[in-house]
Amino acid sequence: MPSKRLLAIGGHEDKEGDCTILREFVRLSRGENARILLMTLASGTVGETVAEYRKVFRRLGVDSVSVFDVRTREDTKSPKGMEAIENATGIFFTGGNQLDITALLGGTEMARVIKKRFERGVVIAGTSAGASMMSNSMLLSGNSEDSPRFGSVEIGPGMDFIIGTMIDTHFSQRGRYGRLITAVAHYPQDIGIGIDEDTAILVEDDQMRVIGSGTVVIIDGGGLTHTNLNHLEHGKPLELHNLIIHTLPADACYDISKRQPLLLQHSR
Amino acid sequence: MPSKRLLAIGGHEDKEGDCTILREFVRLSRGENARILLMTLASGTVGETVAEYRKVFRRLGVDSVSVFDVRTREDTKSPKGMEAIENATGIFFTGGNQLDITALLGGTEMARVIKKRFERGVVIAGTSAGASMMSNSMLLSGNSEDSPRFGSVEIGPGMDFIIGTMIDTHFSQRGRYGRLITAVAHYPQDIGIGIDEDTAILVEDDQMRVIGSGTVVIIDGGGLTHTNLNHLEHGKPLELHNLIIHTLPADACYDISKRQPLLLQHSR
Repeated sequence: MPSKRLLAIGGHEDKEGDCTILREFVRLSRGENARILLMTLASGTVGETVAEYRKVFRRLGVDSVSVFDVRTREDTKSPKGMEAIENATGIFFTGGNQLDITALLGGTEMARVIKKRFERGVVIAGTSAGASMMSNSMLLSGNSEDSPRFGSVEIGPGMDFIIGTMIDTHFSQRGRYGRLITAVAHYPQDIGIGIDEDTAILVEDDQMRVIGSGTVVIIDGGGLTHTNLNHLEHGKPLELHNLIIHTLPADACYDISKRQPLLLQHSR
Repeated sequence: MPSKRLLAIGGHEDKEGDCTILREFVRLSRGENARILLMTLASGTVGETVAEYRKVFRRLGVDSVSVFDVRTREDTKSPKGMEAIENATGIFFTGGNQLDITALLGGTEMARVIKKRFERGVVIAGTSAGASMMSNSMLLSGNSEDSPRFGSVEIGPGMDFIIGTMIDTHFSQRGRYGRLITAVAHYPQDIGIGIDEDTAILVEDDQMRVIGSGTVVIIDGGGLTHTNLNHLEHGKPLELHNLIIHTLPADACYDISKRQPLLLQHSR
């Protein structure tokens, strides 16, 4: 049974310099023999986005880059699209609006086929919205400039590529600690994963490793000793005791099912 | 021996509505018999600031509001200023630049007299810069829009009214989690206290209670199980395992010396 491999990117991954993250995606997609499929359904300006990724993947030695765009539920039935998915060695979801991904792809046969390919070892990557949609719980919106308050974030179900997590992106750059803490307070069963720009987590089965130039912040509410959330009115500030936070830079590892950082980076 | 009482405010405390925080300051300063001294040395626009506070304190029933402004080290020797300090039942440091407070007041006889009054039970309040300067470690600057990195915050010694803490203000509003986490990573002996706007901590000896409309975030690095900080080059991202965070709304209590939130709010 091959490992299931996800690459969740916090947005704005480097496309000009070393391209550490996209290079890793290419490697996981079989390097120069990769057949990359861009899924652009979250993006508004598809032409530009595709041109940008084609250029960087070509620079990284990959010529086979196809695109499948979905604008309606009907589009997901396209035999050409299905074939592209079956044929790809790496599938990349571009950024934009995560709700476009779940609204168009959720519950479709196409989603089932992507999941099947994923289970057979095809790497699924996504940046920004393309990363947010990967978890079972998906952050849709939330104020970054207010105290953590009951009901101040909107959370919906994601595409279930990783279970037991909630992914937030552009994390340090947009000051999203407060909203992820709020989200974890609402659903402490899920681990909050805040990914910076030009930073990613590579998840293989239950373990994740950080790559890129920033950090990943893990917010774990499993050990909360007190919460007032279940007694609050909408909009009232949260009392939370003993949230646990880890900050993880490149090469740091974390076990999602054990909810524990791992000290592997020195032996790597 | 009277309790030592500090009121550290995260900035922009309400001056139009219920004035919960300033009302508490007035109460602690003996209510209608208060003799309030405004220390404006951190502020740029002293005239406006003074007019604003005079107005709100008058509305809260206090007529005796005096002002002492310090612009040079020499000013701290003013007998009139010393007399105002000796006479005040509550001393309020307005906001602005915390470095103005420490640079002008640090090590002076005037600072010693203020500390003495504090030890005799006179409440010391401060908002924004006036709160930041209260702790032994004082946050001077730090980027709020980058990953936690070695050396990315500037920390200096404060005025030592509270020991064992670092206070940050405008906390949720300016997305300052990352910078306070970075500060705590550098000096985990000090507890990070992030205070929202229109929110305050009332510290009596070792215990604090939250008042106001937002939350106070406590970041405790005492239980860190791993840090890479001491091996890093300047600017490299931090790896931190098991930081503890508490979010505390109005009425929540925390014991600074025991580093523990207290569950008193329901028995109040």
